[in-house]
Amino acid sequence: MKTFPDKDDFLLDSGTARELYHKYAEKQPIFDYHNHLSPKDIAEHRHFHDLYELWLETDHYKWRAMRANGVDERYITGNASAYEKFEKWAEVLPRLVGSPLYHWTHLELWRYFGIYEPLTSVNAMRIWKKTKEMMQGEGYDAVSLLKKMDVRVLCTTDDPADDLRYHRQIREDDTIPFKVLPSFRPDRILSKDEDAIRELMEKYETEDLKEALSRALDHFRENGCLVSDHGFSTFEYGKDEEFSRLMIFLGKEYARRGIVMQMHLGPIRNNSPKLLASYGKDAGADSVGMVCDPIALSSFLGALEYQDALPKTILYNLNPCDNSVLSTMAGNFAPRVQYGAAWWFNDHYRGIRAQLDELMETGALASSVGMLTDSRSFTSFVRHDYFRRILCQKLGELVESGMYPDDMDTLGKIVEDVCYGNAESFFQGNA
Amino acid sequence: MKTFPDKDDFLLDSGTARELYHKYAEKQPIFDYHNHLSPKDIAEHRHFHDLYELWLETDHYKWRAMRANGVDERYITGNASAYEKFEKWAEVLPRLVGSPLYHWTHLELWRYFGIYEPLTSVNAMRIWKKTKEMMQGEGYDAVSLLKKMDVRVLCTTDDPADDLRYHRQIREDDTIPFKVLPSFRPDRILSKDEDAIRELMEKYETEDLKEALSRALDHFRENGCLVSDHGFSTFEYGKDEEFSRLMIFLGKEYARRGIVMQMHLGPIRNNSPKLLASYGKDAGADSVGMVCDPIALSSFLGALEYQDALPKTILYNLNPCDNSVLSTMAGNFAPRVQYGAAWWFNDHYRGIRAQLDELMETGALASSVGMLTDSRSFTSFVRHDYFRRILCQKLGELVESGMYPDDMDTLGKIVEDVCYGNAESFFQGNA
Amino acid sequence: MKTFPDKDDFLLDSGTARELYHKYAEKQPIFDYHNHLSPKDIAEHRHFHDLYELWLETDHYKWRAMRANGVDERYITGNASAYEKFEKWAEVLPRLVGSPLYHWTHLELWRYFGIYEPLTSVNAMRIWKKTKEMMQGEGYDAVSLLKKMDVRVLCTTDDPADDLRYHRQIREDDTIPFKVLPSFRPDRILSKDEDAIRELMEKYETEDLKEALSRALDHFRENGCLVSDHGFSTFEYGKDEEFSRLMIFLGKEYARRGIVMQMHLGPIRNNSPKLLASYGKDAGADSVGMVCDPIALSSFLGALEYQDALPKTILYNLNPCDNSVLSTMAGNFAPRVQYGAAWWFNDHYRGIRAQLDELMETGALASSVGMLTDSRSFTSFVRHDYFRRILCQKLGELVESGMYPDDMDTLGKIVEDVCYGNAESFFQGNA
Repeated sequence: MKTFPDKDDFLLDSGTARELYHKYAEKQPIFDYHNHLSPKDIAEHRHFHDLYELWLETDHYKWRAMRANGVDERYITGNASAYEKFEKWAEVLPRLVGSPLYHWTHLELWRYFGIYEPLTSVNAMRIWKKTKEMMQGEGYDAVSLLKKMDVRVLCTTDDPADDLRYHRQIREDDTIPFKVLPSFRPDRILSKDEDAIRELMEKYETEDLKEALSRALDHFRENGCLVSDHGFSTFEYGKDEEFSRLMIFLGKEYARRGIVMQMHLGPIRNNSPKLLASYGKDAGADSVGMVCDPIALSSFLGALEYQDALPKTILYNLNPCDNSVLSTMAGNFAPRVQYGAAWWFNDHYRGIRAQLDELMETGALASSVGMLTDSRSFTSFVRHDYFRRILCQKLGELVESGMYPDDMDTLGKIVEDVCYGNAESFFQGNA
Repeated sequence: MKTFPDKDDFLLDSGTARELYHKYAEKQPIFDYHNHLSPKDIAEHRHFHDLYELWLETDHYKWRAMRANGVDERYITGNASAYEKFEKWAEVLPRLVGSPLYHWTHLELWRYFGIYEPLTSVNAMRIWKKTKEMMQGEGYDAVSLLKKMDVRVLCTTDDPADDLRYHRQIREDDTIPFKVLPSFRPDRILSKDEDAIRELMEKYETEDLKEALSRALDHFRENGCLVSDHGFSTFEYGKDEEFSRLMIFLGKEYARRGIVMQMHLGPIRNNSPKLLASYGKDAGADSVGMVCDPIALSSFLGALEYQDALPKTILYNLNPCDNSVLSTMAGNFAPRVQYGAAWWFNDHYRGIRAQLDELMETGALASSVGMLTDSRSFTSFVRHDYFRRILCQKLGELVESGMYPDDMDTLGKIVEDVCYGNAESFFQGNA
Repeated sequence: MKTFPDKDDFLLDSGTARELYHKYAEKQPIFDYHNHLSPKDIAEHRHFHDLYELWLETDHYKWRAMRANGVDERYITGNASAYEKFEKWAEVLPRLVGSPLYHWTHLELWRYFGIYEPLTSVNAMRIWKKTKEMMQGEGYDAVSLLKKMDVRVLCTTDDPADDLRYHRQIREDDTIPFKVLPSFRPDRILSKDEDAIRELMEKYETEDLKEALSRALDHFRENGCLVSDHGFSTFEYGKDEEFSRLMIFLGKEYARRGIVMQMHLGPIRNNSPKLLASYGKDAGADSVGMVCDPIALSSFLGALEYQDALPKTILYNLNPCDNSVLSTMAGNFAPRVQYGAAWWFNDHYRGIRAQLDELMETGALASSVGMLTDSRSFTSFVRHDYFRRILCQKLGELVESGMYPDDMDTLGKIVEDVCYGNAESFFQGNA
């Protein structure tokens, strides 16, 4: 039986897995091409003071887990104190057996605090105090936390009307050794939000939405933007004419600027009217929606390809039933189109394994762009480590069971590429 | 290699799994909150005389398996003798490698008859005779079979127009040590079956369907009803206006009475016109239908929550592709809404594991309400044992592989809660 | 750790698995009831000269894998030399860890060439030369390759207007020891392709499409046809009236002639406009489409059954989310309707295991018709071996883990039946 947490061997069951991880995966830097970090926090070197600020302030993953285990809303988004909220989290945590939250939490305690024991209600106060004390010293501001994980490039998620002042501020800050680049996320425009449309047109002093978008894209590109991002509850290409025209327009604009297009398909957001009223959006009441319409997706990508205007694209599905649909759809336009990492409700041990299986069986694991955090949290970068361990374990299993030769050079190269190199190359031409 | 049947260790591969099972799971009583047992059989202490009566008389799961293995209908629903039918079942059984029917059958032979060998055509006659002889003695009537499994609460499935006389008869019978409570299943009303509607309105002497439903619910509640039940081939909320209004009405009525609402989503019933004509409904020609419409489901639950009238709810899917949809939808309204047990065609080793995985990754295993039989059979209660073994094995795997600490107190408590305690608490406030 | 390739034990992890494979599975002949082999190639004993001809000329599975790994189209469908294309394939191959292509390629090197090492860019030239030299000798024509694998029956896929001259030529060729039978695939007719309709009506000198189809079926039946084949991107039964009438007509025609009906559900073909323009169809730009509509499928099969005109049928899904839908739908009409083998993008280790699991849990593994190649390649028959190993491994796991008795006679019989006997019986009545 293995211990928990087994820092060296966590998730690594075989010699092959351990060698792949320790020799190749562990030392790779991080190219995090999609997250929701606050550029303001980075620009201002925001200092974090306790685990509440780091973990619980905005993390709706944890909120959901607390609600599902019967915690009163007072301790989630309510007016309980920071420590009370942390204490409730520590109480709930042991109940989260098999949850990625359980693993992430402990990986974060190791990597950022050197704490190496399961968090429970028994040691909650001790760990709270110890971490709080540590955080009074150096190393717990946004920039230091990112440096600690050897982050090289970060792509945040930004509104088209954003002035990107923080991205400029970061670029001009010599003490920040990594790139923080804006990503273009025009979801509110595509959902015909009138405020968003007016704001953008006013900012760029035009009555023509397409012109405003085009000028915003120029502005993003000038500030280093490598990638755009789209979220679709349902992808209405071919059904909603205005939407379709706008998507084709944007696809072309991305293609000619070398901006990668990300498509996130399938969530239903803000399902609870109560939480929406009491807290607002992103309260932890989002869920997995319908499978995607592959014919609409094929039509869209095909229309762009036909016009020689298909940008590099990454497809993500929230409904795990779309794994094979998106992996094989990406394959139709490979290598321009990629099947992306296990997203959100799929970002767990089994979900990551399913994504890796899918890539190996119907896609191209060795050429895939690997992991991202998709998170608001400055300590969520352990998710790269979690992914890397699962990747090495998976490949180790294939070798151990005689399904692949014991060719560590080739496997090591694949591991390095998937952990970092492929993302760098994929986005590189555009950087 | 393990033997079969390995009574002590069946499905339990590790020390952790065995400890969790033998120390915590095995001794839990049973709260079976959804089944199709006949209250008349219980009230009348129906005595069973042979394995045909116990196993083959109405079990369309077995019928399907026999048909799929080429058995003539004469031996299934036709006029062959009871023993001939049993003999065919014994012939087919060894072919059902990997089927839950294989495991259930042998668990039933152990638990109810102390028979501890694989049933085949070779020993069919011997086992038939031995069990028949045993069944002439005490312990093989409906009440004794349930007592043997330490059943505490049973929720049957009943028509709104039912007079519930058998439930009352059971309550007044001092020799029955467990509760048998009616569940309200208005499917025929919701499918606009005119006979059902007329019958209900006549029974409650009103021309107003809603009033009739409301009075029927009062009648059910007076007889201890804790839970309602709905089956939907497709859930037409928001598409069929009358249906939508009726569902909102019922949801509110459940909420104000503290009745839990069960929603079973996704079967297509009675697919074979031949079997429907020759035998009738429930002949074993039902199958997995379309995935659910999560937007309709979200709208329905949200509408009730918005009106402060969301009853406790359990969501079940027949299409396994809906696992993550329903688990995350439940999470939007947790802990009021629960993701339910692996249902019907999912009620097998892999399906139960998938449901547990889903709960651990995107839901809340430790707070989940656990297993139920959903069966017409008085010996189907071994399905609780089957579930418990899989649960303990699953948790054991996490500990053995270093994915969770060796914290047996916490895991043992989770096991106890999932096996019994959570169901009791969830339904308790309403009991 | 096992070696690769471990010819004897490849994919077989336990003594039970190995015994089942070596004692029962390995020696079974092959009944390949669905493939896309060229009857002309067989009739003319086409000789293959190098691995390019054998592997790369038309295999769009390999083309996709090459594209996804960044190989230029010149080396795929372009004007690079045969060796250059092979060399690129050898370069890409080690990157295909976990892909069925990796396993098939090496199984083919063993079985047809006695080569027993991983193919890489290092040994590419040596293996090219060695195999090319071997292929100058006997044993590398279409007929010999099929004889080598003990093929007994082959069902090719043919247009209704085909004159079947090659099938006749094969039948009259005493040196061909196996049957090569035409399959009736009226896809172009059902998609209302006017050229196809006109061609068929002209061939049979009638203005009545149904009469033309009926006469074509007679012609196919006279030439030994056992099975028809249909591919549906979406199955429009009940939505498109003409389509529905034609499907019912064909179903009845199949039923009265004893022709099995195959339904392949769910691909989207030719998604890349560029590849369609530059190469044409079957360029490797097909992908997994929408899940099927189970209500439409139920209506269709039920309508035929109601009219006593349901032919034996095999259902295949491309979207893996349809596994349980099709397996349980088949069960509604079992044993006439079968759930078919893991198809195309599901034809890999995990996909085959999922199909076997599905059959064991919700279908009838022991009565299932087993594997087929569905391939254009004369060396793709190793896929039967791949399937057999996975089948034996799966059954071995059940025995080893105590989920089934160590009853090798029963399991051996099941293995033999699934590998060959069941297909022979299912199609036999019609042969």
